[in-house]
Amino acid sequence: MNYHQIDAIDAKELVEGFKARFVHGENMTFAYWDIAKGARLPSHSHVHEQVVNMLEGRFELTVDGETRLLAAGDVVIIPPNAEHAGMAVTQCRILDVFHPVREDYR
Amino acid sequence: MNYHQIDAIDAKELVEGFKARFVHGENMTFAYWDIAKGARLPSHSHVHEQVVNMLEGRFELTVDGETRLLAAGDVVIIPPNAEHAGMAVTQCRILDVFHPVREDYR
Repeated sequence: MNYHQIDAIDAKELVEGFKARFVHGENMTFAYWDIAKGARLPSHSHVHEQVVNMLEGRFELTVDGETRLLAAGDVVIIPPNAEHAGMAVTQCRILDVFHPVREDYR
Repeated sequence: MNYHQIDAIDAKELVEGFKARFVHGENMTFAYWDIAKGARLPSHSHVHEQVVNMLEGRFELTVDGETRLLAAGDVVIIPPNAEHAGMAVTQCRILDVFHPVREDYR
């Protein structure tokens, strides 16, 4: 069985304050983020569709110039190539899912 | 922004004891399950890759004849066409992610 325990995976800090544990399938990458309060993600885009699942905390997300404050239970679909940026208003836990696999995160 | 609040989505009971709220992207379907203790999912398969994210509770999952007891923080990747079945040992919350979109869940 292709089984993973998230807590047993080494975290990588890809942007200051953004630590992720990754699980890669054949077609999707799962990024389990622990984000420090106040950490900022600069605006960027990628060819992957991304689905943001807010698990804990409050995160201010901007997609294509529209900003929204997200809380636990919120989901946002970011289309391929859409510009997006964010800021952790509180400490956050977020699950981001990407298609196709983020080869740059392996 | 393509934004969803999981709690605001109507739940569908697809199998007895398995209630789901669905969010569909371009390439992926997200199923947020609330599962009653003791509920059983009969063995089945589909062409979609499926990634099981255990959020809460304990779920006994069988994939291609191998059985494992899952708890919060566990992740299992079920390959396309793999036979799988399950039983909720306790009340559970699970996020299943599928690629491609589950057209049968729209």
